[in-house]
Amino acid sequence: MTLHKALEKVTFLKGLGKADLNHIVKIASVRRYRAGDMVFNKEEVGKNFFIVNSGKIKIFSSLGGGKRKTFAFLGKGDFFGEMSLLGGKIRSASAQAVEDTELLVISKQNFGRLVVRHADFSMKIIRTLVERLDKANKEVESMLFHNILGRLASAILELEAKSKAGPLTVAIGQGELAEYLGTTRVPVCRAVNSLKRSGIIDYQRGRIIIKSKARLQSMAARARG
Amino acid sequence: MTLHKALEKVTFLKGLGKADLNHIVKIASVRRYRAGDMVFNKEEVGKNFFIVNSGKIKIFSSLGGGKRKTFAFLGKGDFFGEMSLLGGKIRSASAQAVEDTELLVISKQNFGRLVVRHADFSMKIIRTLVERLDKANKEVESMLFHNILGRLASAILELEAKSKAGPLTVAIGQGELAEYLGTTRVPVCRAVNSLKRSGIIDYQRGRIIIKSKARLQSMAARARG
Repeated sequence: MTLHKALEKVTFLKGLGKADLNHIVKIASVRRYRAGDMVFNKEEVGKNFFIVNSGKIKIFSSLGGGKRKTFAFLGKGDFFGEMSLLGGKIRSASAQAVEDTELLVISKQNFGRLVVRHADFSMKIIRTLVERLDKANKEVESMLFHNILGRLASAILELEAKSKAGPLTVAIGQGELAEYLGTTRVPVCRAVNSLKRSGIIDYQRGRIIIKSKARLQSMAARARG
Repeated sequence: MTLHKALEKVTFLKGLGKADLNHIVKIASVRRYRAGDMVFNKEEVGKNFFIVNSGKIKIFSSLGGGKRKTFAFLGKGDFFGEMSLLGGKIRSASAQAVEDTELLVISKQNFGRLVVRHADFSMKIIRTLVERLDKANKEVESMLFHNILGRLASAILELEAKSKAGPLTVAIGQGELAEYLGTTRVPVCRAVNSLKRSGIIDYQRGRIIIKSKARLQSMAARARG
């Protein structure tokens, strides 16, 4: 498959016209990462913009004290790395391949030109930034209002919405789940067991099965009052 | 002063060319609000984009249980209201005039055209969204890592960076400060007194005076370890 055909299948680029797509083929290169490889580290100077062609990327930050906070899992068609190209120059978080992953890489200079010259491209960047900002603000609200149970309920619903593990199913280990909430294993394990005992979820071998989505939603929504 | 001259002084618009500015004069109208007036409420359908011409706007969300979370104070040249025009249709937070305030109002339709046709304008939107996302993510990190003292230290530094009350001075009441942190008066009052006793700040008649910026910075930075 040519890079052009591969690019046409990337969700992020789907709305772009042929001229835009041809332009991106010219300026993008492909890089492959093994599961566990770092794409970049927090506090490095940002030099590239990335689009996920296949695989899975984790965006996270080390909090100190051995704790980590996962901000997002990104899959096919998602992009990342724009923040240090547009704002401060330093990466505000780290990016790591969770599975074997193929990325399209665009240099800082070419990315800047794309944003200025291609309105469809900049509109997509804007819409995604708005989504991510909305998610971050809701997380702040949720942290101010909820205990760990409510935050776990929100997190399970978020992860399920983009899960590929089947309906009402999320494939995630307890360590990853703890990092997604920015906490440690012990409180997450307790919260998971509490949701299991209440019959709201089941959790076996790294898979959460949602048994009552309505009750999860009401736990997660309690902050909106 | 004509609207055109007033617009030339708005920071947000300063980088824009004459053609862009003329275009905005044509499509923007001016609205005045008294201190305390609501501009819009959370969960309303978003119809307009706003640029602050003078005065001060607070963006906040009610958390239930009488608690509020202030996301930002916005002044001359700042913009708001873009999120529900670009993402979900519903306002994700409320906007209220803190002082007597004059806003430039641009309809959803005209805003959409501006973003698509004027690259400088969309670039400014993108850069601001990146800044706000970075701030929100840092707040999530800070909440996961810090107790109220560390979060208060971060908040004072943020507020001081855009304060007009003089060097090392922030004009803010304890109620507003509690809302900025998304908590209630009692814990904030305790934390303020603790910083006072340590000689790090002074607080009198609604004014915080920073006496040791270095110590505030080290308290706020402890999450970055």
